[in-house]
Amino acid sequence: MKVDNSPPRGTRDLLPATVAVRDHVLGKITQVYHRYGYQRIDTPCLEDINRLTGGQGGENEKLIFQVLRRGLGDQVEAGARLADLVDLGLRFDLTVPLTRFYGNNHAALSLPFRSLQFGAVWRAERPQQGRYRQFSQCDIDLIGEESVLAEVELIEATTEALAAVGLPGTTVRLSDRRLLAALAQAAGLPQEAWDGFFISLDKLDKIGWDGVRAELLNLREIPPEAVTSATDRIENLRGLDASKLADAITAVVPGVDEQIITDLVTTTRCLDLISGARELQWEFDPTLVRGMGYYTGQIFEVTHPKSSSSVAGGGRYDKLIGSSLGKDVPACGFSIGFERIVDLLDERPRREAVVVLHDSDVPVADALGLARELRSNGRTVSVIRRRGKFGAQLARLESWGFTSFVHLQSDHDPHTPPEARTLGQQPQP
Amino acid sequence: MKVDNSPPRGTRDLLPATVAVRDHVLGKITQVYHRYGYQRIDTPCLEDINRLTGGQGGENEKLIFQVLRRGLGDQVEAGARLADLVDLGLRFDLTVPLTRFYGNNHAALSLPFRSLQFGAVWRAERPQQGRYRQFSQCDIDLIGEESVLAEVELIEATTEALAAVGLPGTTVRLSDRRLLAALAQAAGLPQEAWDGFFISLDKLDKIGWDGVRAELLNLREIPPEAVTSATDRIENLRGLDASKLADAITAVVPGVDEQIITDLVTTTRCLDLISGARELQWEFDPTLVRGMGYYTGQIFEVTHPKSSSSVAGGGRYDKLIGSSLGKDVPACGFSIGFERIVDLLDERPRREAVVVLHDSDVPVADALGLARELRSNGRTVSVIRRRGKFGAQLARLESWGFTSFVHLQSDHDPHTPPEARTLGQQPQP
Repeated sequence: MKVDNSPPRGTRDLLPATVAVRDHVLGKITQVYHRYGYQRIDTPCLEDINRLTGGQGGENEKLIFQVLRRGLGDQVEAGARLADLVDLGLRFDLTVPLTRFYGNNHAALSLPFRSLQFGAVWRAERPQQGRYRQFSQCDIDLIGEESVLAEVELIEATTEALAAVGLPGTTVRLSDRRLLAALAQAAGLPQEAWDGFFISLDKLDKIGWDGVRAELLNLREIPPEAVTSATDRIENLRGLDASKLADAITAVVPGVDEQIITDLVTTTRCLDLISGARELQWEFDPTLVRGMGYYTGQIFEVTHPKSSSSVAGGGRYDKLIGSSLGKDVPACGFSIGFERIVDLLDERPRREAVVVLHDSDVPVADALGLARELRSNGRTVSVIRRRGKFGAQLARLESWGFTSFVHLQSDHDPHTPPEARTLGQQPQP
Repeated sequence: MKVDNSPPRGTRDLLPATVAVRDHVLGKITQVYHRYGYQRIDTPCLEDINRLTGGQGGENEKLIFQVLRRGLGDQVEAGARLADLVDLGLRFDLTVPLTRFYGNNHAALSLPFRSLQFGAVWRAERPQQGRYRQFSQCDIDLIGEESVLAEVELIEATTEALAAVGLPGTTVRLSDRRLLAALAQAAGLPQEAWDGFFISLDKLDKIGWDGVRAELLNLREIPPEAVTSATDRIENLRGLDASKLADAITAVVPGVDEQIITDLVTTTRCLDLISGARELQWEFDPTLVRGMGYYTGQIFEVTHPKSSSSVAGGGRYDKLIGSSLGKDVPACGFSIGFERIVDLLDERPRREAVVVLHDSDVPVADALGLARELRSNGRTVSVIRRRGKFGAQLARLESWGFTSFVHLQSDHDPHTPPEARTLGQQPQP
């Protein structure tokens, strides 16, 4: 009987070479953030279903893998609602768990708290190329810092981490939700239309200005003069230098809160300083909106020439973390597109590995002893039995990533270990 | 409104200090196994519910967190069975997934394949002290090696990994399922009573010989003379030297398969060699049974003076991995009691971390610039704002694990950075 050994639909097995790349990427990212004082925390993969459906997750709340209560009978009671059978769900992001974690543990944490999270999340999306139902996220959050020091530090650390991983030369796009709201107001958009305005603007990359304008006019039913006013203002602010930002914003968005300008000037001046020291670019881009509803201040995305979509993104969200504590807790975070980055870096980390290739009648103790001796120099050594045609076996060893071998034969001289030979060169049988 | 921020019942949040210990332990274990050629693989946390309930999991199959099918309506159909609503479950161990993984990917893997797995598993057990519904397992398996080279290598690597983690001086207990079966036969136990005999014998640590004998007689209804014969034979084999093992087994279990003796002699002689070179002891102990039904040869457990229960265990299981391939695939594995080891090592790894403690009116660029400068020497540096009483803040910084600080004041001389001071010494405000 043929058994189907595939993993569940939309999930995947990770083979050694893939895990090695992922571990390498994670190691580099972790190393950089550690030096900025970020520390890893971990939360359970399961969360209370009511928490997961509390409204922080947007569309993701529709994609939850729901877990049955324990101790239910075999038969479902007549008239039962499905929701009554469920008490837990698999997390769909690391932000909802972080909010709960901070509420549960804040008294034991430093202030500010620098959090690094890496872990699997689950979304029951329609499986498609490059999209998985279980995938890993890497989130970095600075909780308790109210000034843009948080924003700048996070951008600096994240672009440094990306460079360490092998993605130097990133570009940071910077925007501000507060400025976008002020701009919408100045353009004469009624407040109830702002969210729709942001959602349409967010699609600029995909549908272009014509598409955005059409959506604002037809779908959002925003008056033509307000649409023109808003889009003109945005275009006038795009790509400004740090030195011109304050004057331009004052002119384009009259009456805007001074703090917004001060913050943007500070951030952009700091970005100038950082980008002077290493391969990093930034641009002010008020067309950047970002999807989630919880952002309250500056928002940013990082792009790289090798990727058509962003490799990291984040922003300030001052209302979320404190929501379970009954007070606002300032917070700013970054999410690194871990799966995307791993896909960009398909290069396999180099591994030096020796094989002790022993004839089957060589005593076990001899084969293991030679391996132990070779290993004592810090080398990676695997013991493998000689079988089949010699050349074919060497070719297989090479294809499995081994770099050299020692052939231990039955008549070997116990005092003179055989020599190591490099794989991939023409071997002598 | 007070929100309950606890994680789901039986699960836990892991704070930075705990994660640091866990990462340290995992790093050390991985490093040792890597040098033996083991490579990490990863499988999804969800598996098909039918696979999880296929009989390999014993009692664990009753503890599965079951996942609802997607796309069901709000209302459950009348007469629906609960099982019809479920298609997936969270894995309860890493062995069932490994079997599927090997069936799915064997063509792309080396032969033999040295697998290292680390990951969370879930069991809906009654929560109690030190038992969690989500916990991590660390499994190491050598697939495709039919000789006891596998057993010896796994014992050598595992005890080396435990020593590297900070648990030298382990003792390996060795037994053999084939020998136990032959012994039960020689003692006159009917074959249908062997499983019950093993289960009772497995409780020796807890209930003593009197308890085991009582269970064999009353619960298992094994004839008294067979019970006496079996327990006498076991006692006669316990604690034997490698040099005496062959003769003793031949005498105590007449007619036993020669291969069993050869294998045990090879393993024990190799263990003598290994334990000569480092702090490691071993004992032959035919009272060792181990719980799972799938073992087919030598079995082993590792104990350490600091722990009342074993810290690692494993054995040969030649019938499991190939079960989905329609042929036997030899396999031998070890499971390291990761959670138990972490509990034994509550020591926090030392971390050197500097704080740039800046007055609130110090420009953001200055605070971040000083941090960058200090970091360039490889140091871990966090930026934290001065607030509250100076001494109290320093005490908090120390309690959070920082080791030194630099106080950046508003009137600082930009050309002369302030000096770093060690935390925990009497500071000058």
